[in-house]
Amino acid sequence: MSIAVVGQSGGPTAAINATLAGVIAGAKSSCHIQRLLGMRHGILGILEDRYTDLFEAFPNGDALDLLSATPSAVLGSCRKKLPPPDEDAALYEEIFRRFEALDVSAFFYIGGNDSMDTVRKLYHYGREQGKPTAILGVPKTIDNDLYGTDHAPGYGSAAKYVATVMLEMARDAAVYPVQAVTIVEIMGRDAGWLTAASALARLGGAGPDLIYLPEVPFSMEGFLRDVRQVLARKASVLVAVSEGIRSATGRYIGDAMQSGAVDVFGHRYLAGVGRALESAVREEIGCKVRQVELNIPQRCAAHCASGVDIAEARQIGRATVEAFDQGATGVFLGFARREGAYAVDIHAHSVDEVAGRDRKVPLEWIAPAGNDILPPLMDYIRPLIQGEAPAFYRDGLPVHAVLETPGGLR
Amino acid sequence: MSIAVVGQSGGPTAAINATLAGVIAGAKSSCHIQRLLGMRHGILGILEDRYTDLFEAFPNGDALDLLSATPSAVLGSCRKKLPPPDEDAALYEEIFRRFEALDVSAFFYIGGNDSMDTVRKLYHYGREQGKPTAILGVPKTIDNDLYGTDHAPGYGSAAKYVATVMLEMARDAAVYPVQAVTIVEIMGRDAGWLTAASALARLGGAGPDLIYLPEVPFSMEGFLRDVRQVLARKASVLVAVSEGIRSATGRYIGDAMQSGAVDVFGHRYLAGVGRALESAVREEIGCKVRQVELNIPQRCAAHCASGVDIAEARQIGRATVEAFDQGATGVFLGFARREGAYAVDIHAHSVDEVAGRDRKVPLEWIAPAGNDILPPLMDYIRPLIQGEAPAFYRDGLPVHAVLETPGGLR
Repeated sequence: MSIAVVGQSGGPTAAINATLAGVIAGAKSSCHIQRLLGMRHGILGILEDRYTDLFEAFPNGDALDLLSATPSAVLGSCRKKLPPPDEDAALYEEIFRRFEALDVSAFFYIGGNDSMDTVRKLYHYGREQGKPTAILGVPKTIDNDLYGTDHAPGYGSAAKYVATVMLEMARDAAVYPVQAVTIVEIMGRDAGWLTAASALARLGGAGPDLIYLPEVPFSMEGFLRDVRQVLARKASVLVAVSEGIRSATGRYIGDAMQSGAVDVFGHRYLAGVGRALESAVREEIGCKVRQVELNIPQRCAAHCASGVDIAEARQIGRATVEAFDQGATGVFLGFARREGAYAVDIHAHSVDEVAGRDRKVPLEWIAPAGNDILPPLMDYIRPLIQGEAPAFYRDGLPVHAVLETPGGLR
Repeated sequence: MSIAVVGQSGGPTAAINATLAGVIAGAKSSCHIQRLLGMRHGILGILEDRYTDLFEAFPNGDALDLLSATPSAVLGSCRKKLPPPDEDAALYEEIFRRFEALDVSAFFYIGGNDSMDTVRKLYHYGREQGKPTAILGVPKTIDNDLYGTDHAPGYGSAAKYVATVMLEMARDAAVYPVQAVTIVEIMGRDAGWLTAASALARLGGAGPDLIYLPEVPFSMEGFLRDVRQVLARKASVLVAVSEGIRSATGRYIGDAMQSGAVDVFGHRYLAGVGRALESAVREEIGCKVRQVELNIPQRCAAHCASGVDIAEARQIGRATVEAFDQGATGVFLGFARREGAYAVDIHAHSVDEVAGRDRKVPLEWIAPAGNDILPPLMDYIRPLIQGEAPAFYRDGLPVHAVLETPGGLR
């Protein structure tokens, strides 16, 4: 019986608190964990001795349900990347010294690729130094680019939000009897999973006409040709584009805008790929055109979270504690999809598997012309947006779980 | 017993179809209306003989409930502004000729200020020419700037979306322990009602620290001073700003950006007020800063519609038909708020009352420093976002009502 610590790291999502709720529920049931401390702002919480007692903060199932419906990271997050141990052994020594002072038997870290890198480094350092603390990772990312899992918690909710607002914007965009192009810029710098989710709007009867993912080189000429072809058959053209599309030479399309545009102070700034495409359509085609960045709500629109995603996020949090109970360390857990009707199993993977690897959309799931996705990708995403996650409203607004000393500077 | 026509005009909202559902329900109950035709693309539908039989298209209560949950304008919309009759009498003659050919006893037009101008012109022309068709307006606008009504249908749902995502973004923005400014640009070029709604996020426990409405002259120096003051006490600063803020000399703040920025083709473009403020913070304060335009979802996020708004939108649609039944013409209907607990009455107003008038946020509801709103404005908006409008989901996505020959060019 001892203490476990848990932290959240990297960009927040609509599901990372549900994973935390799963870890808390798992820890409460564990006969190896007496107390669960939440590190504030990820690994910084260890270094600065900032913790919240999570059994006290979330004493019952209602509190965990509310936590699961709360966007962002209730413990606060960080972007700290650990240097290799040989560059700063003192830092590692300090972390494990604090683990020992607290008698920490397990360290659970919920995060994306960078956070799994932290897990991997801590695990190897601890093992080499004979430290007793088990080190486990729990995946999350809206980008869905984590290796070793069929999909990452957080992706399904982001995908549901993207598909929902794309459907609503498709309704909106079609309302006037004039030619108009609407370009929607979607998050995902290196992987097109979230941009691809815009296609699910078609299940609702309307959606993007053209979809561009970063996995395929982007050509402005090809794009303008595609738009003209759609305009020849319908008035309103809806385009979904990843923020990370690049030319055949690897140059970010958004950079063209960045280098050309200056603000009132004469400084260049990143205008983004949506504005680059908007300008191209205005200049070369000349019809009405506008761009929309879906922006931060993609990762925090808990009011539109996927029921499947939130349930799975809790499940994998709990399963990670169970893996610890069974002696696991140096692992992160991932989903494996079964054949047939949608269902997942949860498997543990060595953190070494994930190191330096990310997961892009397979080219065989992208239309050969590079301007749409193919049915197998729709089939892949579809189960992940099913169901509406429970939401709690008071005074017309969502209710969220909050902890004292919320995320600001301390 | 005769034919009535109904149209939707101006920018779509999450509630304009609920108003249409109210008109349909009212027309079905009316002993003066045999058939209700929906004009496609507003007044253009009359001129081009494009109608949909709405009793056939929406045969029962379930169909009307689905219509009420559908964003955008199911009949299509238009931005056509009628010229004064003395400039184009033939156009008016043509419209009424078509009314007479169809035996149209009532013309219902759902829209904002411009649409009420159309209603007023048609009413006066028809009266002067002794035409029998009754002409009635039904208000809608997310901007809430319509004169003659306590608030306009569509505003409450837009306000609920703005408050909801502001709350979610406030959670997201506070997650890292670093100084950061998030600037959120909200619709409403001349009136700050929708930007003010961002303050309701505070009911959920987090929200904007600073709010700038177009009713008060904006000073960049004052803004930077405000931001610095908030940064002195907390790390994450959330700013809500109307797209229409202007300097003391009346110049749009977004124009500063417009005139300074050029795209890859060397053309100037409107970068918007959010980017202007973002640049100023980056240049003058130097901390992490980003801007978010809430953009089109503000007016079409039916998945987050206000229960009060959708119910009232149906109610006023139905009441407009009842006013026609009682002999009204040349009127639009508006809400009057009762004293005490929230409740509204519906009153008819002459369309002449509204002509050329709009409704701005009263200065006494804005903080003297011009960087926040005051409690009476919170009290005004709060009842309008209450309740979650019924939503219908299939396959993880909202289900919408659609009509044949949807909004494209025909």
